[in-house]
Amino acid sequence: MTATNTAHTAPATPVVGVALLGHGTVGRSVLQFIGESANDLTHRIGGRIEVRGVAVSNPDKHPDLDPQLVTTDAKALIERDDVDIVVEVIGGIEYPKELVLAALNAGKSVVTANKALVAACSAELGEAADRAGVDLYFEAAVAAAIPVVGPLRRSLAGDKVDTVMGIVNGTTNFILDAMDKTGASYDVMLQEAMDLGYAEADPTADVEGHDAASKAAILASLAFHTRVNFSDVHCEGISNVSAEDVAAAKAAGYTIKLLAICERITTDQGEEKVSARVHPTLVPISHPLASVSKSFNAVFVEAEAAGKLMFYGNGAGGAPTASAVLGDLVGAARNKVHGGRAPGESTYANLPIADFGEVTTRYHVDMNVADQVGVLAEIAKVFADHGVSLRTVRQEEHDGAARLIVVTHAALERDLQATVAALQDLSAVRSVNSVLRLHND
Amino acid sequence: MTATNTAHTAPATPVVGVALLGHGTVGRSVLQFIGESANDLTHRIGGRIEVRGVAVSNPDKHPDLDPQLVTTDAKALIERDDVDIVVEVIGGIEYPKELVLAALNAGKSVVTANKALVAACSAELGEAADRAGVDLYFEAAVAAAIPVVGPLRRSLAGDKVDTVMGIVNGTTNFILDAMDKTGASYDVMLQEAMDLGYAEADPTADVEGHDAASKAAILASLAFHTRVNFSDVHCEGISNVSAEDVAAAKAAGYTIKLLAICERITTDQGEEKVSARVHPTLVPISHPLASVSKSFNAVFVEAEAAGKLMFYGNGAGGAPTASAVLGDLVGAARNKVHGGRAPGESTYANLPIADFGEVTTRYHVDMNVADQVGVLAEIAKVFADHGVSLRTVRQEEHDGAARLIVVTHAALERDLQATVAALQDLSAVRSVNSVLRLHND
Repeated sequence: MTATNTAHTAPATPVVGVALLGHGTVGRSVLQFIGESANDLTHRIGGRIEVRGVAVSNPDKHPDLDPQLVTTDAKALIERDDVDIVVEVIGGIEYPKELVLAALNAGKSVVTANKALVAACSAELGEAADRAGVDLYFEAAVAAAIPVVGPLRRSLAGDKVDTVMGIVNGTTNFILDAMDKTGASYDVMLQEAMDLGYAEADPTADVEGHDAASKAAILASLAFHTRVNFSDVHCEGISNVSAEDVAAAKAAGYTIKLLAICERITTDQGEEKVSARVHPTLVPISHPLASVSKSFNAVFVEAEAAGKLMFYGNGAGGAPTASAVLGDLVGAARNKVHGGRAPGESTYANLPIADFGEVTTRYHVDMNVADQVGVLAEIAKVFADHGVSLRTVRQEEHDGAARLIVVTHAALERDLQATVAALQDLSAVRSVNSVLRLHND
Repeated sequence: MTATNTAHTAPATPVVGVALLGHGTVGRSVLQFIGESANDLTHRIGGRIEVRGVAVSNPDKHPDLDPQLVTTDAKALIERDDVDIVVEVIGGIEYPKELVLAALNAGKSVVTANKALVAACSAELGEAADRAGVDLYFEAAVAAAIPVVGPLRRSLAGDKVDTVMGIVNGTTNFILDAMDKTGASYDVMLQEAMDLGYAEADPTADVEGHDAASKAAILASLAFHTRVNFSDVHCEGISNVSAEDVAAAKAAGYTIKLLAICERITTDQGEEKVSARVHPTLVPISHPLASVSKSFNAVFVEAEAAGKLMFYGNGAGGAPTASAVLGDLVGAARNKVHGGRAPGESTYANLPIADFGEVTTRYHVDMNVADQVGVLAEIAKVFADHGVSLRTVRQEEHDGAARLIVVTHAALERDLQATVAALQDLSAVRSVNSVLRLHND
């Protein structure tokens, strides 16, 4: 063998090999932007991205892909020596989990947009990344291109975060915003969201709050340096929100939003705990979150030193999600070229997860009651007996029945639930139409 | 000497030595949070922060400081072997520049909150950091705790940013917001801002837009990977904005904000250039920036893949600025402990800076004109002769004179300026009361 004379040539640009797993809307955008921005990416990384292959389950469905790149054998692609970083944009949990773990265990950094995977398996993934000394990036898993993971992991790394709260699901925000603006019912607006492509054929994961709950788990983990899983998140969706609820909220100066709420709370016993929950919430119309319309997302952060921050933008879609994936890819590639690691999973605080009953909330209770003397006193007594004080009471009469809308002061969720259960047992209460929580000021 | 038996002890926590330069509002907060969050910082860094000293010019003014930490010899403190990171929160340009360069040249990473310094000397500082292979962090220089530098440097590193635009000066936003809400004059509201501590005794840097221009230079540099200095930024302040301007804007559905605007533009000749400018701007009341009240800041980013993003929060103050400084400090300290470098200055795109005349804007021109036949035709001809088309014309008559308010369509700034100069020469135009630019939709 002869030594090549390289003494007078410029140093070669380092090459970073990338495996793309999945070629749906996001995968296509990722591939497109890698191609279009090749020169910019090379400068920003200090090295050149080369896509080694794209793993798909059925190549026939991807005639637009370079046949030399397509493979159905994701594992073999991951394990190629010339692959440094694996980008996972498949979706689902079990199969991508197997692939992401294989990648991390093989010493490859991973960029994923998969919120369900990260929320369900953060421990296994975080530990595998730490063992291998590689990066696990997932900015795209929460609110797509809106930088939220990065700010929590880095910008606020010297601060103490008390609350992260936001609109992190575009489908439900589209539906609730449209209900608020038109007065139409949930069913009508769900259909419109489906017709316009804002909701999937099976909208369950969105409308029942599961998607938002995955994001809440991720945000709470980052904010509180504590492992919070999907199963730790109390989750209620929007399918029971009625046009009457929206109208009643509006009359009282609120709009209904599906919020993911992550809070550091102090229990009765003085113990610091973490609460993560998703439920429809009455937000005062003056609050910045109230004006987040259509399918936009917004995340509100309150930290001790920084005060109140808000991040707003497109929370979904191929291009915005690809923007976040590419930002992460540049970070992971820089680390491959220059050394260094992104912040790993941080769980040192290890705070206990609060029961939902330990959370302090305010309630908006809408009831039909008998229109007779003494009913209000009877109902007020039920609240008082459970230690819940009333803030406003509004009564409307119709044809011998009365509609009573009660807004409470802040109280423990368990006391409020017990109050509602007791109200339902009162003969004077014909029906409890809805129970909604209010945003804590 | 006897070797100490360390075989069975846990590995010692690495220590990162920090020199603090300056002990004003921000320096005090930084020191306080380092003390209060010591345990959290150690976990997040993987090493312990130890403050080696605090450099001040007059120790007598800092009786609250541990005398063992105080020094007047900043250079000697920087050069101590046990100092790894230098935090500069002095303010001003010349003296801190000397110190920051000394630190970088000595191989110490630097965290600074000094927008004037970064905007004026980015080339020298960036090159010194690169030569030494250390980090230069300055998140706190723009909009305090609102993560903007980090998102532009990292989260959007795979995207193409077209516009960064925002309210980046709290003092002027407080004044303009108060003028809008009360109808009072600039002078009255400046005085109120001074009385409430929102404006300094000498408010020049804020009200003349210099502070915002520094931030515009920093944002444009990051967004467009091009060196943009303070002197490249076209800068107009708010001291000429009158109560009449605010009222006229309001009547037309706008509010006046001092915006820092950084844009990628394409000139007549098809050349891609960078524009950075600061001026009072009419923002439609429906735009998210219009509802940024009091001294809050907000930065709006538009990128090709990510779409529109907004970042909102406290843009000034000791604690919010300290939050950003500490986030940067954690980043720099992680790199000292674990290896790796933050993204350095990125200027590869090296786009030319546009002349202000090459920028496309819309104008709102408020004139007093003679109330006689043919005046409007004469004025309209001046606009047409300069290739500027009119969008709306509003005329009010008072006692034989008329007030004419013209809003133009988008046109080149140089054509608009020539139009206004020609209008001032018309005998029928008694006075041009104000010329304000509109936000480009």
